[in-house]
Amino acid sequence: MSELRKPDPARRSERSRHAILEAARALIGEVGYGKVSIEAIAARAGVGKQTIYRWWPSKGAVVFESILALSQDPQGEELALPDTGDIEADLKLVMRATAAEFADPAFEAPIRALTSEIINDPELAAQYRERLAGPLDEAKKARLRAAQEAGQLAADADLDLVLDVLYSPLHRRWLHRSGPLTPEYADALVDVTLRAFRP
Amino acid sequence: MSELRKPDPARRSERSRHAILEAARALIGEVGYGKVSIEAIAARAGVGKQTIYRWWPSKGAVVFESILALSQDPQGEELALPDTGDIEADLKLVMRATAAEFADPAFEAPIRALTSEIINDPELAAQYRERLAGPLDEAKKARLRAAQEAGQLAADADLDLVLDVLYSPLHRRWLHRSGPLTPEYADALVDVTLRAFRP
Repeated sequence: MSELRKPDPARRSERSRHAILEAARALIGEVGYGKVSIEAIAARAGVGKQTIYRWWPSKGAVVFESILALSQDPQGEELALPDTGDIEADLKLVMRATAAEFADPAFEAPIRALTSEIINDPELAAQYRERLAGPLDEAKKARLRAAQEAGQLAADADLDLVLDVLYSPLHRRWLHRSGPLTPEYADALVDVTLRAFRP
Repeated sequence: MSELRKPDPARRSERSRHAILEAARALIGEVGYGKVSIEAIAARAGVGKQTIYRWWPSKGAVVFESILALSQDPQGEELALPDTGDIEADLKLVMRATAAEFADPAFEAPIRALTSEIINDPELAAQYRERLAGPLDEAKKARLRAAQEAGQLAADADLDLVLDVLYSPLHRRWLHRSGPLTPEYADALVDVTLRAFRP
């Protein structure tokens, strides 16, 4: 028999935060970043505006937090890339998934909004690097280091440069909408990167 | 002896256009894109607001035109990359110049503003590709083709991919302010690209 529980403010607070972040993400996908307002987010989340301002100073901050929530593993596990021992296969899996994500309107709209903010806000750019891009890059570099140890990648390769060559073309193509984000393109970037940094 | 000239409306018109584009570029550099208004551009250029609206539909359009004017050769010569016969030296020259340009606040502010517009405006992105990025890419590919013919680059290399690998990392580093735009970084990108696409 379940016992009667007293209201739990911490739990309710967590539910509100979650609803706000969900609402922010959904609205950006539906109407575009420019047209989303704090009012609309509050209405969609079923909270008051003041509840949002209690936790976040601006629309940009809510968006940023919603993106962070999106990329955080629900089980709280460490970020890690697949490691089957075959760096080419593993990177192709990851790059194809990345290309598919950026081609998905529900995912790409908030990321595009955030990127747009980041470009014009050095402070937010620094936060982005520290809290989102940085940890992801570390996870990717751990996989690349394993490939170096296995002799699949030049031992003296600059891993930041490897990541630049691997990801930047996809990122730019997405940002400028200058070409399709296909599995073939993802594969081509892996091939080029492994050729450039082969032992 | 110079003869008395009648007022020349075409010439005056050209001068106004030039003044407006200069004013737009200067103001963006000084106060940032967000704070520039059509009013301020008009005041700085010494023209009426209506003169601006006669030629351009929006602030974004004026910025775009001012960037185009910046990249057009004043002598109206064809765009061409240096060709000393040494692809590595030529690309390093070009990439170092590109890195220096993006590190220059006077140049980078309007380009950053334009990039920000492009990200959120697929129509402007298409114009950008057609009128600015496209012609530049063709000039770059002409130089790469010469290198292919000279046996300095793989004959079957996809030249769009070569340009992606060469330029995207620099572009992303600039956009996200994630690292310094040094001559060393420019050189490293050339080295990596030539390694990836060597014959």
